[in-house]
This record gives sequence, structure tokens and C-alpha cells, in this order.
Amino acid sequence: MSLSLDLNADLGESYGAWVMGNDDAILPLITSANIACGYHAGDPGVMRRTVAAAIQHHVAIGAHPSLPDLVGFGRREMALSPDEVYDLVVVQIGALQAVAGSQGGALHHVKAHGALYNMAARKGELADAIAQAVYDVNPSLVLYGLAGSLQIQAGLRLGLRVAQEVFADRTYQQDGSLTPRTEPNAFIVDIDTAIRQVLSIVIHSTVTTADGQVVPIQADTLCIHGDNPSAPAFAAAIREALEREGVLLQKIS
Amino acid sequence: MSLSLDLNADLGESYGAWVMGNDDAILPLITSANIACGYHAGDPGVMRRTVAAAIQHHVAIGAHPSLPDLVGFGRREMALSPDEVYDLVVVQIGALQAVAGSQGGALHHVKAHGALYNMAARKGELADAIAQAVYDVNPSLVLYGLAGSLQIQAGLRLGLRVAQEVFADRTYQQDGSLTPRTEPNAFIVDIDTAIRQVLSIVIHSTVTTADGQVVPIQADTLCIHGDNPSAPAFAAAIREALEREGVLLQKIS
Amino acid sequence: MSLSLDLNADLGESYGAWVMGNDDAILPLITSANIACGYHAGDPGVMRRTVAAAIQHHVAIGAHPSLPDLVGFGRREMALSPDEVYDLVVVQIGALQAVAGSQGGALHHVKAHGALYNMAARKGELADAIAQAVYDVNPSLVLYGLAGSLQIQAGLRLGLRVAQEVFADRTYQQDGSLTPRTEPNAFIVDIDTAIRQVLSIVIHSTVTTADGQVVPIQADTLCIHGDNPSAPAFAAAIREALEREGVLLQKIS
Amino acid sequence: MSLSLDLNADLGESYGAWVMGNDDAILPLITSANIACGYHAGDPGVMRRTVAAAIQHHVAIGAHPSLPDLVGFGRREMALSPDEVYDLVVVQIGALQAVAGSQGGALHHVKAHGALYNMAARKGELADAIAQAVYDVNPSLVLYGLAGSLQIQAGLRLGLRVAQEVFADRTYQQDGSLTPRTEPNAFIVDIDTAIRQVLSIVIHSTVTTADGQVVPIQADTLCIHGDNPSAPAFAAAIREALEREGVLLQKIS
Repeated sequence: MSLSLDLNADLGESYGAWVMGNDDAILPLITSANIACGYHAGDPGVMRRTVAAAIQHHVAIGAHPSLPDLVGFGRREMALSPDEVYDLVVVQIGALQAVAGSQGGALHHVKAHGALYNMAARKGELADAIAQAVYDVNPSLVLYGLAGSLQIQAGLRLGLRVAQEVFADRTYQQDGSLTPRTEPNAFIVDIDTAIRQVLSIVIHSTVTTADGQVVPIQADTLCIHGDNPSAPAFAAAIREALEREGVLLQKIS
Repeated sequence: MSLSLDLNADLGESYGAWVMGNDDAILPLITSANIACGYHAGDPGVMRRTVAAAIQHHVAIGAHPSLPDLVGFGRREMALSPDEVYDLVVVQIGALQAVAGSQGGALHHVKAHGALYNMAARKGELADAIAQAVYDVNPSLVLYGLAGSLQIQAGLRLGLRVAQEVFADRTYQQDGSLTPRTEPNAFIVDIDTAIRQVLSIVIHSTVTTADGQVVPIQADTLCIHGDNPSAPAFAAAIREALEREGVLLQKIS
Repeated sequence: MSLSLDLNADLGESYGAWVMGNDDAILPLITSANIACGYHAGDPGVMRRTVAAAIQHHVAIGAHPSLPDLVGFGRREMALSPDEVYDLVVVQIGALQAVAGSQGGALHHVKAHGALYNMAARKGELADAIAQAVYDVNPSLVLYGLAGSLQIQAGLRLGLRVAQEVFADRTYQQDGSLTPRTEPNAFIVDIDTAIRQVLSIVIHSTVTTADGQVVPIQADTLCIHGDNPSAPAFAAAIREALEREGVLLQKIS
Repeated sequence: MSLSLDLNADLGESYGAWVMGNDDAILPLITSANIACGYHAGDPGVMRRTVAAAIQHHVAIGAHPSLPDLVGFGRREMALSPDEVYDLVVVQIGALQAVAGSQGGALHHVKAHGALYNMAARKGELADAIAQAVYDVNPSLVLYGLAGSLQIQAGLRLGLRVAQEVFADRTYQQDGSLTPRTEPNAFIVDIDTAIRQVLSIVIHSTVTTADGQVVPIQADTLCIHGDNPSAPAFAAAIREALEREGVLLQKIS
């Protein structure tokens, strides 16, 4: 049996006249794309063009729903009720699903964005609301979430296929959560360290935490960041290391 | 063979803390609902509750896409390209379709709202963009449009089922278009006059224009306005008159 | 020396085609109005018409800045930085100040709305950011805040005039904060109980808490709610009781 | 007597996480800045930082109000009433005026953006609405408008100071209007041709139209575009040519 891994990235985060990211450089390197649905980025035209590009590159199409916060790019937590989260996620999945269908593709997965992703990792009611929204719109969709988090548990409870997501450029804490961005050692900037972390996670299902403990972790998909100039080179290096180890890079099936 | 007619109304036009219309009073009187999709009204929670109420009343669920203009309630024309209109309509249909599915219902039709409806009646490129969006998302949806307008032609050209829409409370011009709201005789406020107009349209397929000409008109669906206090009584009176004449009131099949 | 009190209400909370509140009924009963600035309610046209009505009724004009959340009506907390709050408040004060000037009036005060008001009462950094924004735009403005809260302290520290706000229809806790809306005894619905609470606060500078303690409280302004049908009658009754006790009802000078 | 000219550019057109333009490179080359007010670009934080940078460079601060259209960047015409335009302009001027004041600066001028600018050049009622809004907020502000257009006339009628704006990189028609962007010869891309046009306008008060006629034109301010990579070099070349001819580059006083 061979190891396999999905490589996902957040795409389609331009908006109107504003351009963000380098989708053309990232698309050849990934196997699944999380596409903004208009609430933190991604106007309807951007959604269509991004979906069309993903189809062309045989990259799995995912909805990337967010809190309603354009100015804050969906990164600021908001005190929403589970019902509000459910409703937000349903309409965003629906919008992207329609775009995918209109372009001859099909929606494959859902990954919450930014603050919503983080809230869903640790707040059970919101994790359940997102999972239920995915299930109610289309139970064959794959639900992405932070590896080991409440979001994964919520999806499994409903019988959804889930994808446990791990990070190459973030350090981990003993409980399996990411070190908060406000901490000094939250990020891994050295490419070799990042590659070592990824290989450890994928091959041994363990990660060494920021304080030196070795803890178990499960990886179905690896997040590739695309929003800085060195991102494509970083992604290519990780990709190459994984292929060298015989890891099969493919979307979640 | 018996005559039949669909009675449609615009519903779900509340937004956040703001309430509009009297959906509960209108729902028992109609056979199809055009539900706002968030661009002129209808936040995600309102969309869900309106869809659920429509399902409960066995009323056909339609998407009611609009120009992106909350402050102007979608009533102000905007100079959009056909591509921009296509994209706007795809995402709004998709959002409402997902809400319908999540609540155990199914989307039945699409009717453009306000300024977009009016632009689509007389601008061929926009009419085509809307029809193509409907077709590309779901070719089994019914496309509603002003009776005899370019929107109807655009739908027919793509093989879509269409519903020609007529009005009880608006006067017509010789070319079959509505008298602009800015004209003094644009509206029919007398209920008996409105009923006579509806019966003439439905039974004889003709309407007497504002300047006294009799012109042909085709009716599949009648628009019931719900946004003023007397609307339910007005609608009930029209409904009763139609039933008295043996017109079967049912959704477009 | 005679006692005096300002009566304030939140006005101008309509938006586009949506109407909220009963401003015409409330205006004759109050001495100062907090007018929405477009972020939770109040489009530019509503702002102008509300300012004009306030001028006509000789009611002091205040800006009522909010978190950027139309769908949530500014009632959902958001994790904003002090800089973000400062910037939001500056532009909203500026917008209303310009409207006031354009209509021949002048801005008198600032009162944060909803979740921003609550956050500013207990988070020092945000209270400071709001006070600094007020000071930097116009140091002669009066800053309204929850009586005894950090918002009041922040204003005083900058040398701003402040108005300590109290409530007739909410119960208090021992630390002077309001009982959270989620608690069963948060609201006072009996008009006589509400009047007794107001008179105690204004005349004796004490309030009896929800659990029966008597604690000191300072009142410069009383919040009159205007968003339910019985609000005008409630306000009129309180007004009458205050006048009977010889309390001078006038804006903060 | 020496000739003088203002060089203006549209700045502060970033929004949230999205960056647009190269304000730092343009600021040293201009004498006045038109700063987005949040309706087509420019969130409150961007407004503050742009105002602060303009103050640092001794560049005159202008409000750059727009139609409410973030997705369309204010470039799509909308059918607004004069009242709606008046209200939109008042609140946007007010917001930027408050930001300017909060940073120790003062608002100097107003220039409508995009579609609103174009509509105000040829529609008298909208030109009047904008001029009245400027006048009502602060009659000492300078109103910028297309040279020879209805916007200039509207400002003069109210006694406002006006600045007639000309373009280096656009061709003119016989009536003094710009050749529409949709025409093949609308743009001047050759830098020498652009410089010749500017010098002719500034020194001789004439311009040669796209079809070879020489028509009179008045220039108080020249628009410098900043939204493409070659913009700073283009601006620097024009600046140098003007200074070589002894034209004094300074803001409108």
C-alpha cells in the first residue's frame, strides 16, 4: 500500500479590480483548490474564472466559505450563532456549486476560511453547524478541517467523508492545535524544516511540537499557501520531497 | 381543456433586523414564490426561513436574482456587461438552490428582480445572459419574464421552459410593455378594473392598453404584489374572480 | 440647584427600502438622538432625513457608530483591533457631522452602537480607541457611554465631556453593569418598576440590583428605546414621572 | 505672471487585504491627491494611512467620492437620482474630512470618481447635486471636474472655487469631452505625444482633437494616473517637461 496526500490551496481571492495571490503559478502544483465564495473575497466573476482554471488543471474544486467580512478578509472572529453559521455556509456552498456546474465541473469539497476555520476547530456547535450545512446541501462532499479538531469529529459523526488538514509552515502544540500566530515560534520559515515536518507527518503520522514533544497526527491534505511571492517555490520544493519519498499526490477520493 | 394560471409573488425581502412584506398572508394565496437571494434583500437566514415556509405551503420555489444594490433594493439600473449579469445570476440561483435542497425542497424557477427584470425585458444581450445562466446551472428550471419580452425569447431559444408574466395592477402600452411607473396612468388601483384586466388577459389573451387599443398578450403567470397592507385582500379578490371563471390556479409544470 | 437629565434614543435605523422604528413618535419625547451612520443601519438618505427631523425638533444630534455588520445590525461582537475601531469611528462621526452641517445643524455627541457599545464598556483598549477618535475629530463632542464603565473613564482621561447613560428597562448587577440579555431577569417590562428605577437613579444616584443590593450610579442621560410599538407610550410615561419630580429634561450642555 | 498647474492623482484605492496602486511612488510627484472614501475603494484604515502620507508629502488632500460599487470599482454607471447623489457625496466628503482632521490635516478639494465623474460631466442635475453637496459641507473646498464640463459650470454657479481637469493620456473630441474609452484612439500611449498635449493645453490653452481640430481648453489641474507600473516614470517625465517650460507646479489655492 502506498501513502497518498492531497495538496490544497486557497484560490480565487481576488475581488473586483483587486488582484490577490498567484493562482496561475499555484494551480499546477496542487490537487485541490478552496475557492472563495464572495464573503471574504471572490466576486462572481472571479469565482467563475477560478473554477474554470481549476477544471483546466484537473484540480478538485472546493467551496471556501467565510464569515461575512470583506474588509477583514474573513480573518476577524465574529460572534455568530450556529444557525447563522449554517445559513452562511449553505449559501456559499450553493453559489460555488452552481458556478462549478455552469462551467462543466462539480463541487468536491468544503473548507471553511480564516476565522471561521479556526472557530470550527475548537467550538463544537459551530463545527456541527458547518458539517450539517455541507451534509444538507450535498452529502457526497468532502469536509476539510484541522487535523484532529472538532470539525473533523463533526463531519465523521454525520457520516461525511473528511480530510484532515496539516500545515508545513506552522508549528504545533501538544494538543494538536496550531501555535497561535501571535506566538514568536508560530511559523516555520526554513524550507528544510518545513519539509521535514511534512514528511514526519505523512510517513510517520507524528509531529514534533514547538516545545519538542512528539505527538500523533493524521494527514489527508496539506495546505499550500499561495499569497506570498515565494509560495510557488516553497510548494514546489515540498511537492518534490513528497514525490521523492513515493507519496502519491492526489485529491481525496 | 381548462385554462390555468400561476400566481407568483416576490417573497423573502426582509434583511437582517428589517422586516418587509407580509409573507405569511401572501403564501396561502399564491402558487409560486420568487425568493430574494441576498443581492437586493434576503440574507441567508431569511432565505432559509422563506424557503421552509414555501415548502410548507406547497408553493413552487423560485430564485429572484437582482443587481447588487441593497440600498437601492435592486431598483436602480446599473451598466453591467452580459458577463457580469451571467455571473451574478449563476451565484444567486446557486445560493437559493442550495437552500431549497437543504430544506428538503427543490428549485423550480428563476425570475429576475426589479431593474434587472426590466433591463432583461428590452436588452437582448442581458436577456440572453440570464437565460444562459439559468440553463447552465439547471436546464430544467422555468424562466419567468415579462410576457412578450426579449427575456421570453431568450429562454425559448435555449429550449428552456418559460413563464410569460402579466400584471393586474399595471397598464400596458401598444408594444406589450408596461407603462413606465413615472407615467400618471401606470398603475391600476381600482380592484374591479384590475380583475377585468386579468380576466381579459387570461380568457381572451388580449389586454386593453392605456390608450384604448386592444393588443394580444400571453399569460402563464400573474404577479401578485405583497409589499403593501392591502395586497393580501387584493390578491384574494383576484384569486376568487379567476376561480369563479374556472381558471385552474397552479404552478407552471 | 435642580436635577436635570438628557433623554436619548437611537434613531435613523431604517435602510434603503426598509423602515425601522417610529422616529416621528419618539422625536417629540427626547432631547438627544443617536443617529445611525451606515454601518449597522442608516443609508445616506436616511441619515439626512433623520438629521433634518432632529433639527426641526431641537433635538441634539449624535453619531451612533457601529461595527460593520448590516446583516447583524451591529449586534454581533467582532474581534477588531483598537486601530480598526478608531478608524471605523472616525469615518462614521465624519459622515454624520457632514450631514448635520449640510442641513444647518451641528454634531453634539457620539454614542457607540450595539456590540461596539458593549465592548467599549468593558475593554479598555477599545474604549480608549473610541474616545481618541471622538477627540481627534472634534474635542467638543460629548462622549456617551454606559454609566460607570471604561468608556466613561476613557473619555474623562482625554478631557472629553462625557454623558453617563442609564436604562429604565434593564436590570443592573452589583458592579454597575447591565444584566446580560440572556439572563431571565435582564429586562424590566413593568412600566411602574421602570419609573421607580429611573427616579431612584436620577434623584438618589442609586439603583437596586437584580439581586437586591443598592449600589451607587451616576446618570446624565437615559436611553429611550424606540424600536417596539409600545415604546412611545413607555417613554411618555417616564418623561411625565420625571417632570412631576421636577427633573429638568434637557440635552447635555 | 507665471503659469501654474496642479498635478493630481487618485490614491488610497487599496481595500482591506487588497493592495492597489503605488502611492509611495506617486506621492512625491504630485501636488494634490484624490483619496477614495470607502464606496469604490479605501476602507477606513486605508483612508487614514493615505491621508497621513499625503500630509507628510505636503500634498493637498481631496475626497474622491464614488457610486456605491466595490465590485465594479465605481466604474459602472448607476441610475441614481440627484438626491441620492447629493447624499452619497455628503457622507463621503464628511468621512474623509474627519480623517484629515484627525491626522492634523484639512480637506482641500473634492473630485468625483469614475462613473460618477463622467455622469457629472454631462448630466446637469447630477453636476448640481455634487456641487451642492460640496458647498453644503464646506464651501471653501475646491471642486474638481472635467475641463469645460457641466460639473465646472455647476460649481461656478454656486460660487465654489473650481479646478478644470485635463488629461495627458486621453484624446479629446471637438466639444471638449474625452474620446470614449471604447474608441480605438481614446488613449495616448506615446509619452512624447502626451507631453506635447499637456504643454499645448497649459501654455496655449488649446488641444488638438482626435480628428485634428484645434479647440480651446482651460487647465487648472492635470490628472496623473497611478494604477499601472509605468505610471511613476510617465508622471516624472511630464513633470520634468512642465518644469522645463517654467510652469509652476502647485496645488490650487
